Order: sequence, then C-alpha cells, then structure tokens
Amino acid sequence: MTQNSITRSWVASANGHADFPLQNLPLGVFSSNGAAPRAGVAIGEHIFDLQVALEAGLFDGGARSAVEAMHGGQLNAFFELGSEARLALRTRLLELFSEGSTLRGSIEAQGAKLLPLAADCQMHLPARISDYTDFYVGIEHAQNVGKLFRPDNPLLPNYKHVPIGYHGRASTVRVSSTDVRRPKGQTLPAGQTEPAFGPCARLDYELELGIWIGQGNEMGDSIAIGDAAQHIAGFCLLNDWSARDIQAWEYQPLGPFLSKSFITSVSPWVVTAEALAPFRTAQPPRPQGDPQPLPYLLDKRDQDGGAFDIELEVLLLTEAMREQNLPAHRLTLSNTRYMYWTVAQMVAHHSVNGCQLQAGDLFGSGTLSGPESGQFGSLLEITEGGKKPIELASGEVRKFLEDGDEIILRARCARDGFASIGFGECRGKVLAAR
Amino acid sequence: MTQNSITRSWVASANGHADFPLQNLPLGVFSSNGAAPRAGVAIGEHIFDLQVALEAGLFDGGARSAVEAMHGGQLNAFFELGSEARLALRTRLLELFSEGSTLRGSIEAQGAKLLPLAADCQMHLPARISDYTDFYVGIEHAQNVGKLFRPDNPLLPNYKHVPIGYHGRASTVRVSSTDVRRPKGQTLPAGQTEPAFGPCARLDYELELGIWIGQGNEMGDSIAIGDAAQHIAGFCLLNDWSARDIQAWEYQPLGPFLSKSFITSVSPWVVTAEALAPFRTAQPPRPQGDPQPLPYLLDKRDQDGGAFDIELEVLLLTEAMREQNLPAHRLTLSNTRYMYWTVAQMVAHHSVNGCQLQAGDLFGSGTLSGPESGQFGSLLEITEGGKKPIELASGEVRKFLEDGDEIILRARCARDGFASIGFGECRGKVLAAR
Repeated sequence: MTQNSITRSWVASANGHADFPLQNLPLGVFSSNGAAPRAGVAIGEHIFDLQVALEAGLFDGGARSAVEAMHGGQLNAFFELGSEARLALRTRLLELFSEGSTLRGSIEAQGAKLLPLAADCQMHLPARISDYTDFYVGIEHAQNVGKLFRPDNPLLPNYKHVPIGYHGRASTVRVSSTDVRRPKGQTLPAGQTEPAFGPCARLDYELELGIWIGQGNEMGDSIAIGDAAQHIAGFCLLNDWSARDIQAWEYQPLGPFLSKSFITSVSPWVVTAEALAPFRTAQPPRPQGDPQPLPYLLDKRDQDGGAFDIELEVLLLTEAMREQNLPAHRLTLSNTRYMYWTVAQMVAHHSVNGCQLQAGDLFGSGTLSGPESGQFGSLLEITEGGKKPIELASGEVRKFLEDGDEIILRARCARDGFASIGFGECRGKVLAAR
Repeated sequence: MTQNSITRSWVASANGHADFPLQNLPLGVFSSNGAAPRAGVAIGEHIFDLQVALEAGLFDGGARSAVEAMHGGQLNAFFELGSEARLALRTRLLELFSEGSTLRGSIEAQGAKLLPLAADCQMHLPARISDYTDFYVGIEHAQNVGKLFRPDNPLLPNYKHVPIGYHGRASTVRVSSTDVRRPKGQTLPAGQTEPAFGPCARLDYELELGIWIGQGNEMGDSIAIGDAAQHIAGFCLLNDWSARDIQAWEYQPLGPFLSKSFITSVSPWVVTAEALAPFRTAQPPRPQGDPQPLPYLLDKRDQDGGAFDIELEVLLLTEAMREQNLPAHRLTLSNTRYMYWTVAQMVAHHSVNGCQLQAGDLFGSGTLSGPESGQFGSLLEITEGGKKPIELASGEVRKFLEDGDEIILRARCARDGFASIGFGECRGKVLAAR
C-alpha cells in the first residue's frame, strides 16, 4: 500500500501532524491510569490502544496475529513475525482510520480507545533489549572525533572496509524523558599522569539513528546482505550520552565502557520500515579512491535504495532558558544521508561471523554529523573538545552539558508527493551527580 | 557453615570426587528425558533434582524460598535473593546429603531424584544473561598480548588504575559442549593494505574465570567496594573464543567485536561464593612502584581476602589424538591469583558510573595467564602469534586451532584441611566454517 493512496484521517489531529499523520502509524508501548504497559499506535495527538481494539474484535487474520503477538507489553514477538505481519497491521490501521472509514463508528461503539497522547500516557521501552550494538557509521563524526583523539591518524585504515561497531550496555537503555544522572568515574586531568575520581566534567550527547531488529538468525548462520533489510523492524532516535573525560582515559585498548553505559535514551515510537519506504534513497556515491565494499556487504538493491533521507535535529534547553521562556537552541541539523554504511550492511556485517541477532536487539548508527558547521552531532565536535564554547540566548555559554540541561532529538522525513512524517522526540535532562 | 564440619556423604561417588564432593554443591540447570529444563545440584556423579525435591516437601523456610525462585529453569530470581538464600539452601543440602543423615530414606522414599550426571542429563545455561561484560584483569596476558599488538606500548597507562573491561555479546554465550563454528570475517593479510574475507585462520581460546552476578543495582546507584562481594552469586569457567586475525583488523578504535561474538562458552555449574570461601586469599602484593587503587576500589577486607586461589587448566584434544587414544595435551596451567583486580573491584568499577547490574549478568575475568611458559592462557601467547608452533604427541603441530580440535577448561581448589573442589569442565569442539 503506497503512502499517498490514502491521505486524510477522521482523527482530525492526524492531518498535517508533524510526526504522526495517518501515513506513519508508529508502534509503541504505553501505560495509563496505573494499568499494565500495553501496545499502541500513535495517530495525531492520540494513542490507539491495540489491546482494547483486539478485544473489541477490530482485527482479523494477519493483523490479529500481529496484535496478539504484542501481548505482555513488549513488541519482541511482533518484531519476530517480520514484514508480512507489520504490513497486515498497517493495512488494517489505514482502513480503520482513513477519512470516510465505515469503521469509525465501530471503533467508538465497541469501546476501542483513542487516548490523548500527551495527557495521561506514559511511554515505555517498546521491546526487551537482549543486546544493544552501537555502530560508528557516521564518517564525518569519525573524522571529527578521530582528529581530537588521534590528530595524526583521524580515520583508521579499517574504517572504509569495516562497518565498525561495538557492544553497548543493554541494561541502561531507557525511553525518552528518563532523567540522565551525571556519572562519576576516573579521568586523567590535563597534564597529569595520575587519574582523579569525580563527576564527569565533559558530559555530551550523540545524535544517532536507532534500529530495531526484527527476525533474528541462529548462532552460526549469517544474514546475507540481500536479505538484511527484511530483518529490520523499525527505527527510532537514539542519544548515546557520553562522558568524554571518562572515555578518553578508559577507551584503550578495548573501547568505550563506563563513559557510555550510564544511560542510552531512545524515542518511544517504532517508525516502521513500511512508513519510511518513501524516504529511502540511493547510497550516496563514495568519494573517488574509496574502496568497494567486500562482496558480503554489496547488494545492488541496497546500493540503489538502502539509504534514508531523514533530517535529524538536536535542541538544547537549559534551566535558565526554561525560566526565561526562551525557545530551545538548535545545536545540530543533520541527516541520515551521512551514514557511510547502510543499515542492511550493518546487519550483514554483524551476523557474518555467525553472531546471533534476536528480535528486539537495538542498533545505534553512531553519531550522524554532517560535514558543515551546524551539522555536528555532538558537543565534542561543535566546541572542538571544549575549546570553542557556544553562546546561548540566555547569556550562558556551554562547552559541555551542565546540570539541568535538556537535550531533545527530533527527526523529520519529507518528500514531494508524500506526507511528511516524524519520529516524535527523544528527550533527556541532566541531573547532578549523586 | 564451615566446609570441614561435614566431610562425607552417603552419596558414595561424592566422597573424594574431584569436582563435586559434598562441600561444593554447585547449582545448574539441566533437562532429561525430554522434560523442561529445571534446577539441580551436582553431587558426585549425580544431579539432585531440586524441583522434584521441592514437590516432595524436602525444603522449608529459606531453602524452600530459594528453590521456589528457581522455577522455570533459570536461576536469575534465585541469584537476586542473595547470599542468605544461598546459605539456607546450602545448609539444608548439607543436612540432606551428609553421611548418617536421617533424611536419606526420605529423599528416596518421597521420590526425590538423584540422576546420573553423565548418562541422561543435558546441561543448559544456568541463567538468562541480560548483559555480559568481559574484563581484562589478567595482567600477564595484557602484557603478553600488548607486546604482540603494540610492541612499543604493551601495557597502556590506564591499566594499573582502571579495571579495563568491555561489553561482550550476551546472545552467543553457550553452555559447555556446544560446538564452535569457525567464524568468517574480514582480515588484513600480512603485508597487504586491502582486506580479504574468509574463514578465520587464527582461531584461539582464552582461559577465563566467569562470574555470575547476584543482586543488582538500580540505574544511577553504585555498588560500594565494601558491599561488592555480596553481589556475586557464583563462578564458572569461561572460554572467550577469539578470532585473532579478525580481531587485529577490526579492534581499533572501539574494541573487539566480531572476533569474539561468534560464541563464548561457560561451564554449566555455578560454584557458589560459599563453596569457594576456603579458597579466598589476600590480593597478592603489587610490585614496587605500582599505584594504589583509587579509594572507590580499595577496601581492607577485599585486599585481605578478596582474591582466589583456583588452579586453572586447559587441555587440547585433536581429532588425531582421539583416533589414537592419546590423552589430551595440557596447554595451560594457571591460577586466578594472576588477576590484577579482584571480582569485588570489577563490580565496584562497573557500577561506579551508575550502570545497572542485574541478577544473571555474566562477567569474564579476561585471560588468566601466569608469568611463566606453560602458564599462558591462549595460543596467541603460547605460540607468540603463530611464530612458535607447539608439537603434540600425535605428531601434529599447532599454531592456532584447527577444525576438530577440542578445548577443555578445568579448575581445582585445594587447601590443607579442606576438601578439594572443582568446577567441572568447559568444553568446545571446533567445526569447519560454513
């Protein structure tokens, strides 16, 4: 079902909604009024309670199986069902909510619920995350950070051959709006040889695309690049909060550890592969002289349409800005086109050694910076490691994040002839160290 | 209950058993005859079925709660109960199985089962592993490997301050006897600048102590070093199978990834902190000039008794050796005393930034090599990266592991006045790449 075959919904707030028009229909897990977390769909300013709708008999066949798999308030089993189930549910939801739907009355009459999104609903993680892997496919970020950590050697020789990634901490992935406690740890003060211990003094955000894995693979098997897109259930925004001073001291030789594991935030809504289909694009041509990917990472369909055109934005709101009613300050305006590897390439690479992926695994893309000033996806890049503080309308300056600062990630997809969709927000406010 | 207050069991095979005398009583999850996995205790050549014993009314009070928490064939909820529950269960098991126990008849009469360990029982992972962290606390290994990867810089400046660790892949931790499929991946052939793709040619083992986490902590909280030992449920053997050629090419800047994530093997039995109490020892004195740990890693009780004296052994059995009925070749005889950091220091460090630990999390110690030849915990160290092949009684030589090779890890604790205990085996046989 193409996006523009149906354009308007009888849910008035959906029409022209920046994030959740009828064409998006992202899935999430919410709770309200003290009830157990359950699955829902965002439409305009509302959540459609899928559990209640199921009980009201609104789903049959594949759509019914899809919603039944969401039982228990986690989408893992639904993700495992793959694209057919997602498409069956999407088709039915488009029927239910399109303008002129004969089913509007039945939704209301049978007690199926449309809850106000903002007012009473608390969002939860959409799935139980068995493993979280953070990639490093933003080549502009890799170059910018490489310059700061290894001035003589910004981009390592493996970068253009290997979709670099590392295992992250699954236990501290949290849904948007969870506060971010400033971590404590070891750092090496400038010019010294003995470390100090205390609260992180260089707290940062990282703007990433999050990827929810759908069907997995058995240990020992690999997912071929041509099949990899079929193993992706959907997408979210991801903030890979980073303690730069802890990171600089700990990260060799085994990579980032406590500098990242205190929290990782994700936006609550799973934007499906189907909703994003119109915003697929060809992988941008590689610069002259860059190597061809090895055959296990190369697929014509992926090269032709495996990248995404998604605009990504980061906003900062400080305590003083909130008090003065100032608008949030835009730190970053970037795009997923700056990914050097596609999500299919990430999946194929991750499993090529026989590593088992499971439904509900989470990937981060790595920080997605663009090449220009204004497109950098972390303060480390924007302030050049603290050397060039930014000035805010509140009269404050920032090298890194201070207590009370809130970071807001947003994403928007727009293309002529298609309704624009968004991801909703991924927010987090910094609290003082304990 | 001290170990030597009870010495013999009416289970004849337990008396003098190398691994599982009455004093050990390790916990595991097994299945037999197609039934669902359930919890058991190893005693001599038998497994005592805790579920059946529970139903037969053999447990009361704390011991009953402990066994009830094992429902569903995973020990996570039991681990979460902490040391009191473990001790209550241990006390009751010692009563049930000590020589002259008046309960022997009741065990047999009430239908509680002692199953032959070797014959019909299949072992499973003892817990659902939410996160797996691999440390790097074997300083001899760090030095040996550092020399190979960074000849000018073997031990990085952070090593003696930071218990270095990284997140591992939880989805591919498997119980002993699971076959090891040789992974495929990218490698950089010697002298070349473009990578190749194919089966790993430098497959290796790593001898590690595994640590099962008991009670966890909330995100944002830390576990103080003085409390850390209370958060450890038990121990196992861990083989961190490693693809050295993939590792060398991929590991910078974010650490090992596909070179490790194809499989990690653990021994099935959880040897409890209580069973290991007699084998605790003082942390070995640090060489002159080494820094004092920072205060968050320093605790007198941990310094005085937070290390372990556990002998660790690695054996190799090739296809040809099996055919010729040759005994396994000992590759390594090492000891947990070569850990530069204690397990309590690992726990305190891991959580100092507020990272949430959860019951059933698994830590690896990192490879535990000793300083002498014969004590190296990997082929990378033994053969100096393939330069000095080892010769086997079968007439074969090995630089790294070949298809059909089986690696067997064992551990033994011995101390005058106490019964020796062991860990059982952690085995894995290499299969050809797909």
